[in-house]
Amino acid sequence: MSLDNFLNKSISRWMEGDGPHSSVVISTRVRLARNFGDFAFPGQAGAQELEKVEQQVRRWWNQGGLKALGKTSSISMRELDENQRQALVDQHLVSPNLARQGYGMVLLDKDGSVSIMVNEEDHLRIQTLFSGLQLAEAWDLASRVDDLFDSGFRYAWSPELGYLTSCPTNVGTGMRASVMLHLPGLAWAGQLPIVLGTISKVGMVVRGLYGEGSESQGNIYQISNQTTLGQSEEEIIEALNRVALQVIRQELDTRQKLLERDGVALADRIWRAYGILANARVITSGEALELLSSLRLGIDLNIIKGLSPRILQELLVMTRPGYLQQVFGRKLSPRERDEKRAELIRELVNKK
Amino acid sequence: MSLDNFLNKSISRWMEGDGPHSSVVISTRVRLARNFGDFAFPGQAGAQELEKVEQQVRRWWNQGGLKALGKTSSISMRELDENQRQALVDQHLVSPNLARQGYGMVLLDKDGSVSIMVNEEDHLRIQTLFSGLQLAEAWDLASRVDDLFDSGFRYAWSPELGYLTSCPTNVGTGMRASVMLHLPGLAWAGQLPIVLGTISKVGMVVRGLYGEGSESQGNIYQISNQTTLGQSEEEIIEALNRVALQVIRQELDTRQKLLERDGVALADRIWRAYGILANARVITSGEALELLSSLRLGIDLNIIKGLSPRILQELLVMTRPGYLQQVFGRKLSPRERDEKRAELIRELVNKK
Repeated sequence: MSLDNFLNKSISRWMEGDGPHSSVVISTRVRLARNFGDFAFPGQAGAQELEKVEQQVRRWWNQGGLKALGKTSSISMRELDENQRQALVDQHLVSPNLARQGYGMVLLDKDGSVSIMVNEEDHLRIQTLFSGLQLAEAWDLASRVDDLFDSGFRYAWSPELGYLTSCPTNVGTGMRASVMLHLPGLAWAGQLPIVLGTISKVGMVVRGLYGEGSESQGNIYQISNQTTLGQSEEEIIEALNRVALQVIRQELDTRQKLLERDGVALADRIWRAYGILANARVITSGEALELLSSLRLGIDLNIIKGLSPRILQELLVMTRPGYLQQVFGRKLSPRERDEKRAELIRELVNKK
Repeated sequence: MSLDNFLNKSISRWMEGDGPHSSVVISTRVRLARNFGDFAFPGQAGAQELEKVEQQVRRWWNQGGLKALGKTSSISMRELDENQRQALVDQHLVSPNLARQGYGMVLLDKDGSVSIMVNEEDHLRIQTLFSGLQLAEAWDLASRVDDLFDSGFRYAWSPELGYLTSCPTNVGTGMRASVMLHLPGLAWAGQLPIVLGTISKVGMVVRGLYGEGSESQGNIYQISNQTTLGQSEEEIIEALNRVALQVIRQELDTRQKLLERDGVALADRIWRAYGILANARVITSGEALELLSSLRLGIDLNIIKGLSPRILQELLVMTRPGYLQQVFGRKLSPRERDEKRAELIRELVNKK
């Protein structure tokens, strides 16, 4: 598995979109924040010390530290240009922060289910990414990767607090579990404010597609645990799973109600989205996301046939600026991106 | 040629859209207002007198008064239901007024090039309708029909004023000549206010698609002569022709400029319109007109291939409420009309 595969093709396993409850849940993510006890935390460390952390991880990896995961690859951020970094962000394999800072590294397993960032906010950010709702599976795999590192390094850990992290909000389990939900039904029915409000009240955080501070686009929302202290990982996973299942039920019920109340209006909205996606010559990423959300709902409701539901995930990634520039091999102006995006979308949508 | 042909099919000759300058001019119309000297004008006449006018015209017609036009048909408004009347309005064969009042009659030649309303605002409204810019031809045919009536009836005519009419604005020639122009280029470039303002200054009147008081829809404008006194018919026709040719040149120049300045943006707008028309499940007549205007421009600029330019004329007529109800054989609610309209449009647009 070479770097090129990650950069040029949408091969990440989570994009297959074949996980449980995949008509509502796009993906499940678990990430663990970890730090090494023998080094200053990244925020405090100088360039030399950061370099030493990377060297140690690389040596350990070269000696087969992650052998249990099958074939893995190691990518240093310094070796990538801006577009290549952005392409990894677009695939959710590294954080925007890691891409921005330009140093640090990432270790990836063969299908992008595991990505381990080194020297981001913490020494390690172990991330597992699954399609559909698979919280137990994602936690299980993250925990296995955690054990591998634990046997090779001494973690910064306190018996009272648990894992120590750069940001106090991560202290304890160091875990953030999240599910990415596609909620067009609730959005169209105007019920999102109520549903999302309820979620906040039970200790979960709701964010837009691209994480903290990002606006929601394409009716896609991330729900994740608020706290990392005072609950075990299993309790957090279980609570989040319960909330996710409830939202899924509400979303599916609402879709049925919309169909029953005015199926023609629903079909109209979906077919118009299809018509624009299949024909537009210029399209912004924001508009594309809104229309792809409608298209995906149409596929889920069997109104639009002959298109794979994974078109949403694929185009979520492929129409991002970084990915587009990677595919077309050069820096593109915003207008050029809008044209290339439209071109790519037409190609995929017209396969029907 | 039976009544059914006019009511159920778009067969009017003007809709063929193959006349001169048809990329800008949809149709040319000339109408002559005439009254008989031996009867009170319709506004003053009682039911009996109106009936007598119709009887006289019908008798004259039965005796071959219009034989020179080939096969013609006579339709009494009283015999039509509301939908049938509206369908004739939609084809521009009778005025909304005649359909509304519910009495009076219309004489039609075999392809809808000639339509003569009896007992509308005046005893006779002789109308000729041609595709493209054909003012001389339309005037010539109207004049021939006028001569036929002139030889069978005594017109209300004064040596000082000319033809006398119910409304003083028609006194003199009794002629209104008009061209229907499709001006998407000027509209998109924001130049319509200037161009239409200039037209008003040279003694012409600008109206929307459905005549006096109607708003412009689909970037379609009617330009007609303001005055009927003090100029000969030939002078009026010539002046209107000059103005029309100038607007045509401005429209075509502007289309080229739009193409050169940002052809991709233009294509985007056109293809989006196509995409929506080809896929929508519910569409109002106003939105349909706007999108059909874009589609037609795309056909004229050879951006969209495989569709006939006459799709605009056909759908202008076929998507009108009256026509839809006629086609589907019953009174339709506004929402049903929007659905049936979308269905009809999809069928025609997807022939591509």
